Amino acid sequence: MKYDVTITISLKEGMLNPEAEAIRRAIAHLGYGVDYLQKQDQYRITLDAVNKQEAEKIAGSICERLLANPVIHTYVIEVI
Amino acid sequence: MKYDVTITISLKEGMLNPEAEAIRRAIAHLGYGVDYLQKQDQYRITLDAVNKQEAEKIAGSICERLLANPVIHTYVIEVI
Repeated sequence: MKYDVTITISLKEGMLNPEAEAIRRAIAHLGYGVDYLQKQDQYRITLDAVNKQEAEKIAGSICERLLANPVIHTYVIEVI
Repeated sequence: MKYDVTITISLKEGMLNPEAEAIRRAIAHLGYGVDYLQKQDQYRITLDAVNKQEAEKIAGSICERLLANPVIHTYVIEVI
């Protein structure tokens, strides 16, 4: 069966993110008040799996082996 | 008041995305069946606004003026 999976990868709290900081400053320069900005990578994937549990397991494995660096990233998996 | 806004920016349908295609192939090399992969940028922003409507309007303006290229991107705004 096909499962639609959404994987969201973000930097752990406290990790410096110069890109996000630059965007936050650019928004402030546009004249808007912005307190906090976090940038995340989101992947929408259609996977083959026998059931929802397996789809979640495969997505976890993809994160660990390919998409996320466990030292600096956290990830959230959502199987639809 | 402070509003938490999530902005998700993705390439329009039909736009080539070599990065997503490379990731799709890397996942296939790990031995998993993957039909479709889309990569999106997601921003979680805390904004100053007088009400929810204004927060949405500001987020739209940030997308148009800074984050998205209307020729190739679509964006979705969610005010929490």
